[in-house]
Amino acid sequence: MPGAFSLRRRVQFAETDMAGVAHFSNFFRWMEEVEHAYFRSLGLSVVMEHEGREIGWPRVAVSCEYSGPVNFEDEIDLRLRVIKVGEKSFTYEVDFMKGEQEVAQGKVTSVCCAADPAGGFKSIAIPEAIRAKLS
Amino acid sequence: MPGAFSLRRRVQFAETDMAGVAHFSNFFRWMEEVEHAYFRSLGLSVVMEHEGREIGWPRVAVSCEYSGPVNFEDEIDLRLRVIKVGEKSFTYEVDFMKGEQEVAQGKVTSVCCAADPAGGFKSIAIPEAIRAKLS
Amino acid sequence: MPGAFSLRRRVQFAETDMAGVAHFSNFFRWMEEVEHAYFRSLGLSVVMEHEGREIGWPRVAVSCEYSGPVNFEDEIDLRLRVIKVGEKSFTYEVDFMKGEQEVAQGKVTSVCCAADPAGGFKSIAIPEAIRAKLS
Amino acid sequence: MPGAFSLRRRVQFAETDMAGVAHFSNFFRWMEEVEHAYFRSLGLSVVMEHEGREIGWPRVAVSCEYSGPVNFEDEIDLRLRVIKVGEKSFTYEVDFMKGEQEVAQGKVTSVCCAADPAGGFKSIAIPEAIRAKLS
Repeated sequence: MPGAFSLRRRVQFAETDMAGVAHFSNFFRWMEEVEHAYFRSLGLSVVMEHEGREIGWPRVAVSCEYSGPVNFEDEIDLRLRVIKVGEKSFTYEVDFMKGEQEVAQGKVTSVCCAADPAGGFKSIAIPEAIRAKLS
Repeated sequence: MPGAFSLRRRVQFAETDMAGVAHFSNFFRWMEEVEHAYFRSLGLSVVMEHEGREIGWPRVAVSCEYSGPVNFEDEIDLRLRVIKVGEKSFTYEVDFMKGEQEVAQGKVTSVCCAADPAGGFKSIAIPEAIRAKLS
Repeated sequence: MPGAFSLRRRVQFAETDMAGVAHFSNFFRWMEEVEHAYFRSLGLSVVMEHEGREIGWPRVAVSCEYSGPVNFEDEIDLRLRVIKVGEKSFTYEVDFMKGEQEVAQGKVTSVCCAADPAGGFKSIAIPEAIRAKLS
Repeated sequence: MPGAFSLRRRVQFAETDMAGVAHFSNFFRWMEEVEHAYFRSLGLSVVMEHEGREIGWPRVAVSCEYSGPVNFEDEIDLRLRVIKVGEKSFTYEVDFMKGEQEVAQGKVTSVCCAADPAGGFKSIAIPEAIRAKLS
């Protein structure tokens, strides 16, 4: 399926908390890991240049719903699905699977930005070469 | 105002990423920090016992929207507002303020659970002593 | 070679800091990752029971020396070498290799402990079944 | 005492692991926090410019010894002592105090570097204005 990608990842000790499960904030780091692996699978990187300017993807909205515990040494399948490639924004969802059980579902919307010569980043239309691969 | 609480926090170096700003996942850790400080301000702790059983607050849904960059050494005011104290669940929002500018807004819903003698945690009605303070 | 083990690991975006390199504290998390993978390769887990008591390995001394930068998306080989299996303690070193270049070298000494019925953990002699595999 | 500085810091939930204590890697992040607070107390920042070039302090050697557990919501005093201000390097130790009990002691050596116009960072003699304050 175009626009879908999966990554298997083991839960590390430092990612657990005193409740004995993976800390909920880590799910956002894992979403980013599968996103970046997806970019690499397309021959892209989230850290790249376009017309001599550095491109970045700051997040504008992220969310996650949790439906089951994730424990140390669990292997979790992170299934990314592209939801929308807008003019400037990119949205994907991730299903977190522990075997056949969905333990969480997350969503990330980022905006394509280019380094501004005056400092900071400004949103830009997603360059065509990137858009073609993401869609 | 009952059900509101504020905490000032400085962005640490290890919380930044190569884009030069605070990594977006940290906002969830900061929400938890102000939540736990709020519990302490009420004479509670998120790690406590009720009728001899350990109480915990696993998250069921969290989200954050970002509207401006947060940089190293910035001081951010985390303003917690209680949104809902349900039968078993607790929802709050956090406004992230950099001076007078809102840079992000987040939301967390947790469910009150008690350690199950058979293992794991089971959702329970929020104990009245806790409910009275949160509301 | 007995007592040696290697793990390849890619540097993630959230592990970088605003200096554009992997934050130095992450090397300790990575040492732990290769240690735990080594335990798994021996059919062990750092979270296990012995004679009905939970075993843990709190760290008593750790160190790391850094000789080169590690960047986003770099693949690093973590080469673990067992240095000493003492009566109660376990020491290993990790060479961090970026291709043929050593970028860091770290060392960890842990002490084998068992959960104390009275609470907390107490150091114990490393159980023979574990010792035989680590040596 | 010149060259000494103290910071009180509370252990956060996300800093604990499934063993119920603060994860050992966090002590390095905390050492950095007190270091940066020390720099600020001197009117400096670890992120600053000198003669138009960005200054950085990559770590070359770090270590920590642990002598007692640190738990959620513990308040820890981080006592920094400057050990040596060399020509290019800066070394400090941190005593981690839980009340009157020392729970850990760490050491960090960094090298002063300046951004190289050709890319990367090169070690430089610590600028006199910084040296005067650190000593």
